[in-house]
Amino acid sequence: MGKAITSRSEDYSQWYNDLVLKSELADYSAVRGCMIIRPYGFTLWEHMRDALDKMFKDTGHVNAYFPLFVPKSLFEAEEANAEGFAKECAVVTHYRLKADPANKGKLIVDPEAKLEEELVIRPTSEAIIWNTYKNWIQSYRDLPILINQWANVVRWEMRTRLFLRTAEFLWQEGHTAHATKEEAVFETRQILDIYARFAEEFMAVPVIKGIKTESERFAGAVDTYCIEALMQDGKALQSGTSHFLGQNFAKAFDVKFSDKNNKLEYVWATSWGVSTRLIGALVMAHSDDDGLLLPPKLAPWQVVIIPIYKNDEQKNAIADKVNQITATLKEVSIRVKYDDNDANRPGWKFAEYEMKGVPVRITIGPKDLENGLAEVARRDTKEKTNVALSDLQPYIIKLLDEIQTNIFNRAKRFRDEHITAANTWDEFLDILENKTGFVSAHWDGTAETEEKIKELAKATIRCIPLDAEKEEGACILTGKPSDKRVLFARAY
Amino acid sequence: MGKAITSRSEDYSQWYNDLVLKSELADYSAVRGCMIIRPYGFTLWEHMRDALDKMFKDTGHVNAYFPLFVPKSLFEAEEANAEGFAKECAVVTHYRLKADPANKGKLIVDPEAKLEEELVIRPTSEAIIWNTYKNWIQSYRDLPILINQWANVVRWEMRTRLFLRTAEFLWQEGHTAHATKEEAVFETRQILDIYARFAEEFMAVPVIKGIKTESERFAGAVDTYCIEALMQDGKALQSGTSHFLGQNFAKAFDVKFSDKNNKLEYVWATSWGVSTRLIGALVMAHSDDDGLLLPPKLAPWQVVIIPIYKNDEQKNAIADKVNQITATLKEVSIRVKYDDNDANRPGWKFAEYEMKGVPVRITIGPKDLENGLAEVARRDTKEKTNVALSDLQPYIIKLLDEIQTNIFNRAKRFRDEHITAANTWDEFLDILENKTGFVSAHWDGTAETEEKIKELAKATIRCIPLDAEKEEGACILTGKPSDKRVLFARAY
Repeated sequence: MGKAITSRSEDYSQWYNDLVLKSELADYSAVRGCMIIRPYGFTLWEHMRDALDKMFKDTGHVNAYFPLFVPKSLFEAEEANAEGFAKECAVVTHYRLKADPANKGKLIVDPEAKLEEELVIRPTSEAIIWNTYKNWIQSYRDLPILINQWANVVRWEMRTRLFLRTAEFLWQEGHTAHATKEEAVFETRQILDIYARFAEEFMAVPVIKGIKTESERFAGAVDTYCIEALMQDGKALQSGTSHFLGQNFAKAFDVKFSDKNNKLEYVWATSWGVSTRLIGALVMAHSDDDGLLLPPKLAPWQVVIIPIYKNDEQKNAIADKVNQITATLKEVSIRVKYDDNDANRPGWKFAEYEMKGVPVRITIGPKDLENGLAEVARRDTKEKTNVALSDLQPYIIKLLDEIQTNIFNRAKRFRDEHITAANTWDEFLDILENKTGFVSAHWDGTAETEEKIKELAKATIRCIPLDAEKEEGACILTGKPSDKRVLFARAY
Repeated sequence: MGKAITSRSEDYSQWYNDLVLKSELADYSAVRGCMIIRPYGFTLWEHMRDALDKMFKDTGHVNAYFPLFVPKSLFEAEEANAEGFAKECAVVTHYRLKADPANKGKLIVDPEAKLEEELVIRPTSEAIIWNTYKNWIQSYRDLPILINQWANVVRWEMRTRLFLRTAEFLWQEGHTAHATKEEAVFETRQILDIYARFAEEFMAVPVIKGIKTESERFAGAVDTYCIEALMQDGKALQSGTSHFLGQNFAKAFDVKFSDKNNKLEYVWATSWGVSTRLIGALVMAHSDDDGLLLPPKLAPWQVVIIPIYKNDEQKNAIADKVNQITATLKEVSIRVKYDDNDANRPGWKFAEYEMKGVPVRITIGPKDLENGLAEVARRDTKEKTNVALSDLQPYIIKLLDEIQTNIFNRAKRFRDEHITAANTWDEFLDILENKTGFVSAHWDGTAETEEKIKELAKATIRCIPLDAEKEEGACILTGKPSDKRVLFARAY
C-alpha cells in the first residue's frame, strides 16, 4: 500500500510521527520547528475549535483580536511572566529588506530599518491585553470582561514534535477581568470544567483535573489548574491550563476600577488556553498500528462509502443507491464521503481510510445491491456487519454514538489501570520504569524535593488532583509528612 | 450622550475614525500601526468569515495552515514577488531575550541568539506554500489543490488607518494549483465572482469587477482581477483581488507534474484574498453622522429591544412579553439583544444602538403592552411603525430583508451616479475634484501615461472593467488611440 507505518511496540515515537505524516494531518515545513497543518488535520481542528467556541460563547465569552507583536517594554512589565518566556521569544528587530549589493537577486536586512524598540512575537498575550484593559476599565460597570482570542503564538522550542511542541502553534487564549477574587476563581474553575468536558465528550480522552505545583505554574499566575491525559505509551500529556492570575497583571499594568463604594481596587484576572497540541493528544490516545482512529464527534468524515464494481454499469447502479444513502445520512448531519475514484482499488481505499481513522466504512458491491444490503465496518473494533440498506440511517446514527462511547471507555479503562499508588521509592521507580502511567504518591510539598525527584526518576508532578483525599503519609523521597497524594508521571 | 462623532461634511476622515472607535469596532494598540479588533468588530468579522468560508467550501476549497515565518532564502525565490514586498517586511533576527545586566528587571535581545537565516513574517504566503506544494505534487492526479487559509499577515505600512491599512491584518488567502492554464484562469474568475457576490449580497456594497493594469498588478502575478467599491466621499476602495499567477511560482520553486502522457509540465497557479479591510468598506459605504449602519445579514445583533418602564412591576411585565418575542425571533435565527440594563436611560440606549448600527430597534412600554403593540424603528430610514406584537416575527423577517435591499440599492444608486465619462483633460480633472467618484476615460495603455496621470490628477486606474465595451477613442492625457474606457478614481 505504500502507507504502512512503524508499529507502536517497535518505536512509539516513530509510530506517532509516521502516523501524523501518512494520515496527512500535518507536514514538516521549511521553517525550523514550524509545521504545516494539512487540510485533513485542519478540518479536524475546525471541528474542535467550533465545539470549544460554542462552549465559550454559551458561558458568555466573546472573541476579539489583539496584535501579534508585543513591544519589549510591555513584555517585560510583569516580571515573572517576562522571565518565564524571555528564553523562547522570536524578536522582530527590522522592518525592511533591501537588495543585496553583493549578490544580484538576493535580499539583505536593511540596517537603516532598525526598530527603535524591538517587538516580541506573542508567546502569550497577557501583556498586550492588560495594557489595553487599562483603557477599557474604569468602573465596576465595565466588569467582567470575558474575552477569548483564537490566534497563533510563537515559543522558540529547541526540541519540537508535530502538534505536541512546535515553535508556532494555534490556540485559543481567554483573558478575563473581574471585580472580585471569588469571581475570578470561579471563572478559572468554570473553564477547567469546560476543557475537561470537551476532552471527554468530544475527543473521547479521559482527563484528570488538578492544580499545578508552584514550579510548574504558568509564569505570572497565582494558581494554574490543568487537565492531564494519559497516552498509550504511559506518558502524561498536559492538555489544557486555566490560570488564576490574581492581581499580578493589574498591578504590572496599573489596571484599577472604582467599586460600588467608589473605592479604587486592582482588577482580578484569569487566562486559559488549549492549543493544536490537543490534536496530538487525540491521535496518541486512540490510534493503532493501522492508523488513526478519530472520535466520530470530531472526525472530518464520519462515514466513507466504497463501491465495489467491475464495470460502469455496476458502478452506476451503485452510485444511484449511494446517492440516496448519502442524502439520508446528510439529512441528520452525518459527514459522509463517497470515494468512487477509479484510480485506486478497493483494497487501497480500505487501508487509506483506516490510516485516516474514518470511524465507519460502508462497502457496497453488486451482490449487496441485489440483496438490499451493505457491509458496515467500524474502525475501532474492526467488526463488520451486513445491514439492510433501508436500516442504514438509524444504524449509523447509533453506531457513531457507540464508537464514541467505546473509545472513551477503552481509553478510560487504560488510564484507570495506569494510576498506581506507590508507597516506597523502589516501588515508585519500578512503576515509572515498567508499568508506566500515573503514580499516586506522597510528596513533602517542597520545590527542592520535586526537583530532586525529577532528576532521579525523570518524572514530574503532573498535578495535585482536585479530588485528592486527605491522607496522612510520608514523602516518597524524603519521608517527611504529607497530607495527600499527588500524581507523578513521565510526560510529553 | 458622550458619543457624538464628527460629521461627514466637517471631516470625512475624522468621522470614520470617530465612528470605528465610538462604535467599539476597534481600538488603537500600543504597537505602531497595529489595531485591536474589539468584540463587536470581531463578531462582525466572524459573520463575514463564516459566509465567505461557506462559499469557498461550496466550490470545493479546503482550509489549511502554513507557517507565519518565511526563511529569507525562500522569500527571495520569486523575484518580482520578493521585490514587491521587501520594503515592508517585518524581520525576525533573534530567538531569545536575556536580562539586561545594566538595568535590573529589564530585558535585552540576546546577541548570542542570532538566527543563522533571518525569518520574514509573511506579508503573503505564496513562497512558503509553493515550496511545500513542490513536495505534494508529482502527477496530474495530485491536482488541483484548492487550499485556503485564514491567517494574520504583516506589511509594514508607513501610514496606517483602522481596518483600511494596518501593519498586521487578518485575511484569507487562497492558493490553488492546476494542471492547465484554462483551469487556473477559470478559478481566478470564479473567486472574483464569489468576492463580488459576497460584497453585494452580504455587505450590500456594489462593486465593479475588473482587471488591474500592469503597474497595479500583484507582485508575481500575470493578471490581477479585482473588485472596486465606492465610498461616500467619492473615493474608491479596492476590496478584493484574485490573481492568475501563471507558472511564475512553479518555476521559482521548481514545481512540476507529469501529465497524462507522462510529460513533465510546470504547475499553474492562482492566489486570492480579502481582508479585514472589508470592514472599513462596509462601514464607509453605509454609515451616517449618527453612527454605523450594518447590513442585517452580517450585523452582530439584527434587532435590539429596549423596554420603557418606571418601576419593577412594569419592567417585569415587559420582560415576560419580551421573552416570548425573543423566542419567536430566535426560532427563525434572528440575532436579538434585550437591553434592560437599569444603569442607562432609554435615550442613551437609542443613541448607543444607533451608533452601533443595529438595523432594527423595538421599543416596548407599559402602554404598548396594554395595546398589544411595539414601536419598530429601522436604522436605515429612521422610520418608526407600531406593529402588533402578534405580527412581530413575520414583520421583522420582512423588514430585515427590506433593509438589506434598501441599503444596497441606495449604495448602488450613489455609485452609479458617480461613474462619469470624461472626454477632455479639463473635464477629467473637474470630475475628480468636484463631483468625485469613478471617471470613465480613454487611456493609451502605457505605464508612463498612467504614472503621469497619477502625478497630475492624484487618480489611479482602479481597473479595466470586465464589461468594458470596445470603443474607439483618444487617451485623456496624450490623445493617443485607445479601444476602451478604463475607470480612474482617487482611492484609499
